[in-house]
Amino acid sequence: MNKSALQVARASYQPKVPASICGATKIVEGKATESVADQADIKKLFPNTYGMPIVTFEKGEAAKSAEAINVGVILSGGQAPGGHNVISGIFDGIKAQNPNSKLYGFLGGPSGLVDHKYIELTSDIIDEYRNTGGFDIIGSGRTKLEEVEQFDKGLEICKKLNIKAIIIIGGDDSNTNACVLAEYYLAKNAGVQVIGCPKTIDGDLKNEMIETSFGFDTATKVYSEVIGNIERDANSAKKYWHFIKLMGRSASHVTLEAALQTQPNVTLIGEEVEAKNQTLDDVVTYIANVVAKRAAKGLNFGTVLVPEGLIEFIPAIKKLISELNDMLAANQAEFDKVAAEDKIDYVVKHLSAENAALFKSLPTAVSTQLALERDPHGNVQVSLIETEQLLAEMVAKKLAAWKKDGKFVGKFATQHHFFGYEGRCAAPSNFDADYCYSLGRVAALLIASGKTGYMSSVRNTTKPAAEWLAGGIPITAMMNMEKRNGKMKPVIQKALVKLDGGPFKFFASKRDEWAIETAYVYPGPIQYFGPSEVADQTTKTLQLEHK
Amino acid sequence: MNKSALQVARASYQPKVPASICGATKIVEGKATESVADQADIKKLFPNTYGMPIVTFEKGEAAKSAEAINVGVILSGGQAPGGHNVISGIFDGIKAQNPNSKLYGFLGGPSGLVDHKYIELTSDIIDEYRNTGGFDIIGSGRTKLEEVEQFDKGLEICKKLNIKAIIIIGGDDSNTNACVLAEYYLAKNAGVQVIGCPKTIDGDLKNEMIETSFGFDTATKVYSEVIGNIERDANSAKKYWHFIKLMGRSASHVTLEAALQTQPNVTLIGEEVEAKNQTLDDVVTYIANVVAKRAAKGLNFGTVLVPEGLIEFIPAIKKLISELNDMLAANQAEFDKVAAEDKIDYVVKHLSAENAALFKSLPTAVSTQLALERDPHGNVQVSLIETEQLLAEMVAKKLAAWKKDGKFVGKFATQHHFFGYEGRCAAPSNFDADYCYSLGRVAALLIASGKTGYMSSVRNTTKPAAEWLAGGIPITAMMNMEKRNGKMKPVIQKALVKLDGGPFKFFASKRDEWAIETAYVYPGPIQYFGPSEVADQTTKTLQLEHK
Repeated sequence: MNKSALQVARASYQPKVPASICGATKIVEGKATESVADQADIKKLFPNTYGMPIVTFEKGEAAKSAEAINVGVILSGGQAPGGHNVISGIFDGIKAQNPNSKLYGFLGGPSGLVDHKYIELTSDIIDEYRNTGGFDIIGSGRTKLEEVEQFDKGLEICKKLNIKAIIIIGGDDSNTNACVLAEYYLAKNAGVQVIGCPKTIDGDLKNEMIETSFGFDTATKVYSEVIGNIERDANSAKKYWHFIKLMGRSASHVTLEAALQTQPNVTLIGEEVEAKNQTLDDVVTYIANVVAKRAAKGLNFGTVLVPEGLIEFIPAIKKLISELNDMLAANQAEFDKVAAEDKIDYVVKHLSAENAALFKSLPTAVSTQLALERDPHGNVQVSLIETEQLLAEMVAKKLAAWKKDGKFVGKFATQHHFFGYEGRCAAPSNFDADYCYSLGRVAALLIASGKTGYMSSVRNTTKPAAEWLAGGIPITAMMNMEKRNGKMKPVIQKALVKLDGGPFKFFASKRDEWAIETAYVYPGPIQYFGPSEVADQTTKTLQLEHK
Repeated sequence: MNKSALQVARASYQPKVPASICGATKIVEGKATESVADQADIKKLFPNTYGMPIVTFEKGEAAKSAEAINVGVILSGGQAPGGHNVISGIFDGIKAQNPNSKLYGFLGGPSGLVDHKYIELTSDIIDEYRNTGGFDIIGSGRTKLEEVEQFDKGLEICKKLNIKAIIIIGGDDSNTNACVLAEYYLAKNAGVQVIGCPKTIDGDLKNEMIETSFGFDTATKVYSEVIGNIERDANSAKKYWHFIKLMGRSASHVTLEAALQTQPNVTLIGEEVEAKNQTLDDVVTYIANVVAKRAAKGLNFGTVLVPEGLIEFIPAIKKLISELNDMLAANQAEFDKVAAEDKIDYVVKHLSAENAALFKSLPTAVSTQLALERDPHGNVQVSLIETEQLLAEMVAKKLAAWKKDGKFVGKFATQHHFFGYEGRCAAPSNFDADYCYSLGRVAALLIASGKTGYMSSVRNTTKPAAEWLAGGIPITAMMNMEKRNGKMKPVIQKALVKLDGGPFKFFASKRDEWAIETAYVYPGPIQYFGPSEVADQTTKTLQLEHK
């Protein structure tokens, strides 16, 4: 493998870990837990893994020699920087307990467990991947572990390889399923523990006990780097408004963090748009107002951050899409026969008056896309809408109207960008390298302590790594019941941006100033070396949440 | 100004300079020069600045005290990382000669000189901008200094501010114009010297004496960072082909450098497409073949790098566009009356058979765009074509046909990206910070030596900065005559990718391997601190050119 100079230099980085897990540890059990809501339902579904205590690891007596153990690890879902460090942490952890322990990696995500595709992760392999980005060490996948047949197939291979514990590295759904699996194996007395690790660049897997999901730190730093560069370009060329869409469909944490780091002129937060019941026109008018105010000061340039999921947060659009899906499903056969050029007319005629009006008000490219392109389940494909372009076009239209009325005096030229894939596989920042490696080490400790149905937890993360708190959280404690595909399911609550939380409140207190002034901050690229205040900084979100 | 931790830490970086210009220097004059071609014509146009010698600066006797001098500086054209360091180098240079010297910055590009918009750059201002990206210290602009009236207006403000020298930081055209200005002022005995500095991220201002233009190093490192991240994502998710377009319309240096750094599966080089007289279908077939070969190995993912100017390099498309422009100009009045939905038909009927066939073969989005959108001069807007999407669509079409014939067995899903604004204003890498600051220091020395019509030159740049060679190159020596807008003009030869040059030959020797294997390299983000082999690396292009 041909490697870059940075890859070579970074390979020897030794991640920092909590002082409490350097050397011998002891496990301290706290009080029994309850799920965050729907306690009776969750308890019924998880009779064996409900109510377990939060545990912490503290410095302990000299380590007693542990038995060798075989462990399996799975990467689940979208890539996030640091996954390889979780795996190297697990590897070093189980090897420290007993050098004869083995780590197996299931290939291509959860399907590797079901289909019995795996490799043994030896130290040669692990050493190639320390502190690197990507999930390419064993690959990832989106198969959901939900069915008993899958669990049983998994158990087969565990028995064959003498695997006593599986660690699933994933987001909220994957961790929910890890707990279902833990419960199933425990109920069956199968002798296979299951531990989860909190991963997602979206930042929406967090709660009182899980301060942050890994990858969020690195990914938002990459996005903030390029946003800062674009801001500096905007402020140098002084002729473009840059509309920048950022990954994150369910929550706007990524966009909020990038805004806190770069102080752009406009930032849209999906959760606020929804809470305030804003229309698409409200959003467009807000942006146009900022553009007009800056133009009045002679500033015909700016930056706008848009979360990928914005469109789905707008209540009116959500209703439109819902009616569209229902209407098209009900009239599928007839609609399929309508000629392509008549489909939009058909849609307009078959929608309620209110939604028909909204549909007609959308730019043609969007209404066409909504009418014509549907996913394999027959649903309209909201994710294909290029929201950043849509907004730029609608703002341009509004400003053109205002210009005629003398309400806007200036120029409005745009560029648009979408950042997502650029950040998901970056080499982990020092924070993510340390955090992930620690999560892996802690997962190994949870296994050695015989735990199952727990998520590996490292807290106090705004402090230096030595002061971090290591432990495990029962996954059931994070659950509630939610409707999914029409059925009530136990799931880990997704953490949306809290409008009364520190990060949003700080942003809201500053945004009017950032809108009109050119208050850009240029974070620059992630530094792996150099002064600690540069190289070891956590996210603004974490700092403001724990102020 | 709210600053990031990196901005703060980076402010105190002391750029490295050639040892020869630390302390006292002496100027050494070489032999008289000739222009690279059309010597008689160039000599006639530049009677006073033609044939001057190349000069170098060497360690000299103790500095004699110099008179204070007022200098003006102009940023011209597109942003490039390091412009602020050229300016701080000039500032430190003239202040070292005499603390009473003053530096004026003309605002918003060359128009600042003509319109008398300027500020004095004091040490407070300079210190805010050391080692930062962007051109925001004084702004840039695209006004061309070509007319005598502009030169005379410029002279007025120089007289008023007692400015004895102007430094123009720009690309090939701006440096050509700097020389025209130098010639004019010299002929007029105006007492104002003019010095140029080689800037452009495109990398197309270089020759025997100018090894590289500044900004190329930093910009290509930013693009390579995100391309590497995308490659790692492709290799982890294993489900997308990423089509990545990179800035650079006239030359493909940026794309070639990014390819050398990241080893993607497909890289298109405009100069090669033109030299081999390839058609759009040739290009599409080449990509489709690589996709099919990888698919045969079970690898349904990859990365394709496309230079922004690709379309204009394809000889057949060039001809089509040329005929389109002529035909539409000739039939403008009639064409304007044609209904929008009939314009494409109109175009097809009025083109030659060959070009009509090519036009019809283009995806509808592209043909529509070519027929409907024209720039203020009435020309079709090639730059609006989203080449990366166009190629992805055409490859998909071809693969679908091959699938029916059994020639392709696999999946082909795509994502597309365009990187340009992300890199033009990044904080300069150590190389660009050093190189630019040195260029500024050398420009100050050229002024102190009474030179005009020279470009600041720093060579031997693949060696440590202490060993760099400082000097000045007569701008006329880089010129030849070229047709511009129908007239023969003296211009600096634009440096295109040389198909017999080291960088391209190395790439060509490797590309078949990179196409089929997954040989990705992940350069990671620019490091300003850390080991020298990481933080002080030059571009692969420079290394291969000077091997």
